[in-house]
Formats: sequence, C-alpha cells, structure tokens
Amino acid sequence: MAEESVRFGILGCANIANKLSRAINLAPNSTLHAISSRSLEKATAFASTNNLSPEVKLYGSYDEVLDDPSVDAVYIPLPTSLHLEWALKSVQKKKHILLEKPPALSVEELDKIIEACNANGLQLMDCTMWMHHPRTYRMKQLLGNPDLFGNLKSIHSNFAYCAGGDFLTKDIRVKPDRDALGALGDAGWYSIRAILWANDYQMPQTVTALPGHVVNEAGVILACGATFLWQDGRVATFECSFLSHMSMDIIVHGSRGCLSLRDFVVPYEENCASFLSSSNVSAYFLSSSNVKFPGNFDTGWDPRPTEHSVITELPQEALMVEEFSRLVKSIRDIGAKPDLQWSAITRKTQILVNAVNTSIKEGLISVTL
Amino acid sequence: MAEESVRFGILGCANIANKLSRAINLAPNSTLHAISSRSLEKATAFASTNNLSPEVKLYGSYDEVLDDPSVDAVYIPLPTSLHLEWALKSVQKKKHILLEKPPALSVEELDKIIEACNANGLQLMDCTMWMHHPRTYRMKQLLGNPDLFGNLKSIHSNFAYCAGGDFLTKDIRVKPDRDALGALGDAGWYSIRAILWANDYQMPQTVTALPGHVVNEAGVILACGATFLWQDGRVATFECSFLSHMSMDIIVHGSRGCLSLRDFVVPYEENCASFLSSSNVSAYFLSSSNVKFPGNFDTGWDPRPTEHSVITELPQEALMVEEFSRLVKSIRDIGAKPDLQWSAITRKTQILVNAVNTSIKEGLISVTL
Repeated sequence: MAEESVRFGILGCANIANKLSRAINLAPNSTLHAISSRSLEKATAFASTNNLSPEVKLYGSYDEVLDDPSVDAVYIPLPTSLHLEWALKSVQKKKHILLEKPPALSVEELDKIIEACNANGLQLMDCTMWMHHPRTYRMKQLLGNPDLFGNLKSIHSNFAYCAGGDFLTKDIRVKPDRDALGALGDAGWYSIRAILWANDYQMPQTVTALPGHVVNEAGVILACGATFLWQDGRVATFECSFLSHMSMDIIVHGSRGCLSLRDFVVPYEENCASFLSSSNVSAYFLSSSNVKFPGNFDTGWDPRPTEHSVITELPQEALMVEEFSRLVKSIRDIGAKPDLQWSAITRKTQILVNAVNTSIKEGLISVTL
Repeated sequence: MAEESVRFGILGCANIANKLSRAINLAPNSTLHAISSRSLEKATAFASTNNLSPEVKLYGSYDEVLDDPSVDAVYIPLPTSLHLEWALKSVQKKKHILLEKPPALSVEELDKIIEACNANGLQLMDCTMWMHHPRTYRMKQLLGNPDLFGNLKSIHSNFAYCAGGDFLTKDIRVKPDRDALGALGDAGWYSIRAILWANDYQMPQTVTALPGHVVNEAGVILACGATFLWQDGRVATFECSFLSHMSMDIIVHGSRGCLSLRDFVVPYEENCASFLSSSNVSAYFLSSSNVKFPGNFDTGWDPRPTEHSVITELPQEALMVEEFSRLVKSIRDIGAKPDLQWSAITRKTQILVNAVNTSIKEGLISVTL
C-alpha cells in the first residue's frame, strides 16, 4: 500500500489544468485518476486534447470526483470565488487539496480552508510552481551565505504579461465575481511570494501601494505595485500587470552580493534554468581615496557576475506535485500529520496580497501589519 | 584653428578625475592642458599617478587654471557644495564647463549656473557617462519601435554600491557641507536620468519617496527610493544606496516588449556592452481560452529574450568628452551657439532629485511638479 501512487481528481478543466494534468502524470508518485467539468462534454474534450489515458475517469460534475472513494487528493483550478465552497466540500470528503492561487479572496476565507484541512488531517498546498524548482533552493543557499550575499537590504520583483485576445474582457481574472483580486491576486501573488521567500518569510511591518494602479470598469486591478518595509529597514517593491509585455524578474540586494533572474515564474527552458549573482565586486573606484591601482580606471566589473545553471529532470510543476504527493502519502500510509509550513506561507502571502488591496482601496494608505 | 583640440583644465584632483583625465586624453578632439589642486604637491602626485605628459601644466590653485588663457574648458569634479562658486568663476573667465554630477544642491543653484553659461555662450554638460555609450542609443531605438516595444508602461532602475573602507565616515558624499544630497544625488542621479531617458524626458506629474530611506547622523541620505507617476499612467520606481552591494539595473516594460540590463552605469567590459530585450513572447498559456497547441504546455519562453551586444571603440567617458568638445569647438571655431539640450536634461534630472529629497524631508508626501 505504501508503494501506491497518490490518486488525483481535478475539479474543473481550466487552461492551467492542462499543465497540471501533465505534471501529475510526470510525477512518479502520482496518478491522474479523474477529471471533471460542469459538463461531461467538456471533460471529454479536455481528455482528448491532453491525450489522457482511457483509464482516467471523466465526470460531468465536481461532486462526482469528491464522491469517488479512490481519489486521494484534488487539484482545484476553479475561479477564486469558488475556492472556499469546493475546498470545504473536498475536506468533507477527506480529500487532500492542491489549490490554485490565489487560494482565496480574503484571509478570513483562507483561514476557513486551512482550519478545515488541519482539523481533518488533510494536506493543503498552493500552486506556486517556481517554489519547487531546484534553482529556487540553489538561490536560497546563496542568499544565506554571509560571505557571498551578506545581509538582505532590498528586493524588487515584477511579473507582467499581456495575454492578448479577449483576456481583458472575458478572462475570470478580470471579473469581480470570479477572481476579484485581478492582476494582484494572479501575477502579484508570485512577486509577493518571492519577496517573502527572500526574506525567510518574515513579515514586513508596513505595506503601501504605489501610485498608478489601473483598474477596469468593474474595479478589478489590471496593474499595480507596492512597497513593503520591515522593522529592521529592509525594503521591497513589486509590480504586477496584465498590460505590460511578459517579464518576471527578481533582483535581491545584499550588503555583499546581488542575485537576479528574469524568468522566475516560468523558466526560459524547462530542463535547465539559471540565475546571476555577483559578490564582492570591487568598487574602489567609487571610494573617496585616490586611485589604488595605477592604470586601472574601473574599465569594467571585477569580477563579472557569475551565471549559475541548474538542471532539473522534472519540470517545476511536476516537482510540486511530487512534493505534495509525498506529504499526502506520509499521511495516508504512515499516519503522519500534514506539513503546516505550506499553509503558513500561503497564509502570509494572502495577508500581503490583501494588505496591498486594502492600501489601494483606501487611497494608498500605509497598512500596518 | 578649426583643427585644434579643445584644451581642458581640471579643477581638483578628486578620484573621478583619474578617469576623466584618461578620457580627455583618449578623446581625439581634446587635450588635457592643465590640472589643479589646492596644493601643487597634490597636483604633482596626481600627474605622476596618472602618467600625465610633462606638457600638462600643474597648478596649486583652481584660479590659476581659470587664469590660463589657453584653457578652453574646465572639468569640475569638486564637491557639489562648491559647484556654484567655481562654475560662476569659470563662466567669468569664459570657460566651457563639463560638470560632475550632481551639478548642484538645488534647482535654484543650477539655474544660476545654466543662466550664466547661456548668457555667455558657453557649453554646459553634466558628467553622466553612460548617456554617451553607443549601447544607450541602440536601446533607445528599440524603445522607440512600436512593434518590438509598444508603449512604455513602467520602468525600474537601481544603482547601489558599498564603497567600503572609510567611505561611510569620510567621503564627501556623506558630508552635509559637501555633497549634501548623499546617495540620492550620487547613485540616484543615474537611475533618475535613466527613467527620464526612457520616458523621452517627459516629466512625471508626481514624485513620492518610498518608506525605508536611511540617513546618517548628519541627516545625509545613504539609501532611498521613490516612485514617479505620469499623467497618462506611466510609472517608475528607483532605488539607490551606499549600503548594498554593487548593482546597476534598468528594466523597462512596454506593452509589446521588455528591455533590461544590469550594468548601465559602468558596463561589465569597456569595449563591448550588451542588453537584453524580449518582444511578443507568446503568453497564450496564460489566456482564458483552452490550450491552442496540443503538446505545448508553456515549457519555456518562445522566443527567448535576445541579447544585443554593442561594441564601442572608445570608453563611454571618452565619448562624452568627445561630444562635449565637438560642441565647444563649434562655438569656439565657427561661432555656433551652445547646445541647450544638455542643460535641459540636466535641469530635469535635478528637479526630480530635489523633489525626491523634498518628499523624504516632508514625511514621504507626494510632490506634484
């Protein structure tokens, strides 16, 4: 029994479910057991588009997935406004939950989901895929190195894309009754998580939205930014947008080093990703004393930044599924308890997303946490 | 006469003058005629360190440079608090002025310098070297391309360095009676210029400092940031610091493209510099519609960003001197008028530097321009 895969059911055939159904199939400890949509036709079309095995069960309602006793865990890519309802129903049916981000519209909603999972011994994890790429761990090692990075001073992150087509009129992410947090809850989620990650999940003291956010006619955020300040002086800024061309940068500034990458959410290539770091670059030419090295007129950087490349044998989303399933198996097969670190960082991210939203709604006030 | 080089005198042997004396020697239309310091010993040591030609005149006071009728133009690397005095004295002696940044402590001071130069038909240019690198022109072409970049949406820039040693206690840039604008006037100058440059020198409507600035005991800024907002919704953020490891990034976000570089102030290498751009990257996987290309699960960026490399035969500071001298020669040899575009962008940069300073001093208020 301990060798058996975790069997997934998917609630809804959202576009992102294409990627996750593949990831579930790629993860060695996971099996796609069932998919569902609001109609059997949609589920059938999804199975066909994704060349799913004929053994995958196709359901015309989400409830049928929850009623299937073979399903260990559900992946929920529904619009955020439906997360609370379907997460709680999933908990009632004792299903572990891999939850698309943003997990909830408010911290209160999220807390109901977290409490329900915890009370029932069920694992909860949000779908922030880049967290699971080996590059992310490698970068964290560097950020923790006092000689190469020193103390974290500031971080900037952005995530933007122009999805084009009918996205700005029809996507759930621009609808107040679906994903009401708009670009902040979608693209902003990633940058806010990146900021928390770099800061060892220490929460800032204040959250202040930047001037210049853009909302649509229904009031949903299409672009915004914010700045965070920690008690010890660390600062962060981020931008997120549905209106700018694709970008996904992190730049982390330390007292002795700097780390940056431009593809943190979706790496340029699936099997190899890189980042840049520089440490202890000579800045003598900027100092007050006279030139130390005759003939050396700061004609460049010494040393130049280092590119670190990291191979991954599975794509980051499959690694996420694998880690989630590992935790689910520990609970299912050996009676372990849920790993609460994941819901803890989910909750911190949600708090900051909602604090930015509050700052925007209340005229760019500084929100104290 | 029209073939004769522009003859430079340098007022003060600041560290940066090492770089500029070399640049003057490298620029084909320029000659280093004289250097000066507050003592002849210092001037002699400077000449020795930099292997200056024995023909370069060494003066033990700045006035002697100004009194030398062979000097066409002066380079002024003095502390900012001395700029007004020595710029006006230089104008009295009909010297063109290449002025280290920040050019002044206030817009009012700068205006006195600009007005004096203009009234006397003298060229003024500030020392923002990266403006003169051919990479900068190449990047501007890309930013102006509607197909590859679209409309500018936002820009982020930073410039930081830890000069180390006794910089934080002894450098003129941390002294209220010398370069009172601190990191804002020094490192911040570059990022603010980058923001203006990318925005075709259109001024923002509001300037708001970010929480978390750091000042020393004397009140001089060691690190700060700000956000700018234009009337049409464009936004910018920048950070500058004496407390973080070397970094010098620009990221410009357009509706159809993105441009970035990490070494805008001092390129990694002197003779070749690069930047990255991406345009029209497919974001179909983020759209609301179902997967368009079976088998393509956004496993990377298509296309990947393009690296643009630009060769320069002269370092950027020599190109700056060359351009300045070309303008001086036009005035000296054919009776042209000063090119006022340079003082115009100097003034806009100074306005923004001082607006950020005002915002900081007045509790992070939003300063309307």
